[in-house]
Amino acid sequence: MKQTKRSMLFGSAVATLLAGNLVSAAALPTMVPTPADNPTTSEKVELGKQLFFDPRLSIDGTVSCNSCHNVMSSGTDNRPTSVGINGQRGGRNAPTVWNAAFLSAQFWDGRAASLEDQSKGPPLNPIEMGMPSEAAVVERLSSIPGYVEQFNAIFKGKNAVSYDNMAKAIAAFERTLVTRNSPYDRYVSGDKTALSQQAQRGKQVFEQSGCNACHSGANFAGPALPTGQGFYQKFPSNSSGYDKKYDLLADKGRFEATKDEADMNMWRVPSLRNIALTAPYFHNGSVKTLDEAVRVMAKAQLNLDISDKDAADVVAFLNSLSGEFPEISMPRLPDTVNNSLVGSIK
Amino acid sequence: MKQTKRSMLFGSAVATLLAGNLVSAAALPTMVPTPADNPTTSEKVELGKQLFFDPRLSIDGTVSCNSCHNVMSSGTDNRPTSVGINGQRGGRNAPTVWNAAFLSAQFWDGRAASLEDQSKGPPLNPIEMGMPSEAAVVERLSSIPGYVEQFNAIFKGKNAVSYDNMAKAIAAFERTLVTRNSPYDRYVSGDKTALSQQAQRGKQVFEQSGCNACHSGANFAGPALPTGQGFYQKFPSNSSGYDKKYDLLADKGRFEATKDEADMNMWRVPSLRNIALTAPYFHNGSVKTLDEAVRVMAKAQLNLDISDKDAADVVAFLNSLSGEFPEISMPRLPDTVNNSLVGSIK
Repeated sequence: MKQTKRSMLFGSAVATLLAGNLVSAAALPTMVPTPADNPTTSEKVELGKQLFFDPRLSIDGTVSCNSCHNVMSSGTDNRPTSVGINGQRGGRNAPTVWNAAFLSAQFWDGRAASLEDQSKGPPLNPIEMGMPSEAAVVERLSSIPGYVEQFNAIFKGKNAVSYDNMAKAIAAFERTLVTRNSPYDRYVSGDKTALSQQAQRGKQVFEQSGCNACHSGANFAGPALPTGQGFYQKFPSNSSGYDKKYDLLADKGRFEATKDEADMNMWRVPSLRNIALTAPYFHNGSVKTLDEAVRVMAKAQLNLDISDKDAADVVAFLNSLSGEFPEISMPRLPDTVNNSLVGSIK
Repeated sequence: MKQTKRSMLFGSAVATLLAGNLVSAAALPTMVPTPADNPTTSEKVELGKQLFFDPRLSIDGTVSCNSCHNVMSSGTDNRPTSVGINGQRGGRNAPTVWNAAFLSAQFWDGRAASLEDQSKGPPLNPIEMGMPSEAAVVERLSSIPGYVEQFNAIFKGKNAVSYDNMAKAIAAFERTLVTRNSPYDRYVSGDKTALSQQAQRGKQVFEQSGCNACHSGANFAGPALPTGQGFYQKFPSNSSGYDKKYDLLADKGRFEATKDEADMNMWRVPSLRNIALTAPYFHNGSVKTLDEAVRVMAKAQLNLDISDKDAADVVAFLNSLSGEFPEISMPRLPDTVNNSLVGSIK
């Protein structure tokens, strides 16, 4: 029975189990996947950085992309769920923007194929940034001369200031948010001293228990798939006390996006890169520590009652996935001279 | 009658009128006023920068100093009043943090003597960052290893992680936030081409109308006074339609801090540096454009019905006070590994 359950559980992951083992022994790829119609340029990255940090993308000028995906930190807000305009709470934990460029589907439920698609969501979400329409965003950007100048220089043409081009610039910036040279990366590149003994034991537990059936690949988020093709698993797969304790089933996951019964409680497999820095955990941010998250995963996905020692070792291994954060200069947000765009909004 | 009113209005400013004229023909001082007990060091500035950008100084991890005093922009949030935790609205317009180091009193009502004193306010303000006590802030900082390490290295001693030292670090960072080399600065340093003809006309109007009776000195905020000794004026001084239109009298200003009748509707004279970038205007942020702010000031303080041309010229002059913003590297906020400090706060 248990075996049956686990076979079901792994589903499509079974085929990638061996491949996953091989692929996961790799540092992050040097090349960041980049769509042909949005080549990365330094000017575009600079514009995207400004947009990412600009709270004027929200209706009342209080919330920027960075409010919930804090680039100065773990790329998250380290809250269970985020806070948008007017103190409103979102329903899901903010995924980190660091290394998101390596994911083949975006959002917890994979409902956006690319970084470009993803970045179009929050500005229009009524509990996040609350802009009423794409046109309203474009109108606001168009009233900031420094943006108009940059959009025109970068995207050319009559409608250079567009919602699509805003998304392209933000995505280009996000493709620069890569953390390399973690202890794990150094280890698999040949520096056998980069992982502590405990982390090496944790790596073994991680692999032998089957964690890497799903958390495979250089990004520990599954096999490298074409953009838009997400790698999903049911969570929780085994029923346990955790379901109720952490309210894990209330959110129906990908089903909410597709309304397909097969997607009930299915979630995109998240990357484990920098996982030690992005507490709290899971789609609802209900688990506060990495130690507890490891126990929940072992039980809920692998039906294992993991020992204290094994859990601590896996945590040590997961800590080796924290990379180096590149130094970034602060953007200067273009001014609206003599006026305030959000000045009439109380 | 009008004359009497203006004499009353100027009060202590009369004596500084001539001095003001002389002093205002100066670029910002090279030396930033710095208290003897808080010398600026690069390590302290770096720590202060981290603290300034860290939303964990707020109870729910959503509001940092930078949320309302945006260093990537004008040092304000360009909103009438700011938004704190839980979507709560503050009562006064956020003053810019740029060049605040040159002011001898902080806050609109001057209730804090120094940058150090000022920075202790918002974390404990229930509608701003909402921390329950100084001890709670210190406890939170103490639970972030990267902060403990820096506080110990910089401040030494048994209680290195303290609320006072937090304030010292933030103030040290703020003393680096100086915008130099504005067109005006270049003009008074000898480059007579730095101001347009219109800006030069505006400068004349500004001086001949008496704006510089109060907005004197290199910071256009009054005479250089010892720390803690603010330079205050009544606003509005003359009753006009603007009082009601912009609800200028509802907030009693410095009276709210001192309960002294003589302080009724008295306000610290704000700097005009970068004023073109910090819309909306006045203590309640009720005036959206600089042009209208100039008209209100002319009428409410000088009882002048300024002409359209003069107002436009003064706006051109005020635009010459926008300085150069130094490039700043983003801080990396110290992590709480495997855990989240605000993880249990929904």
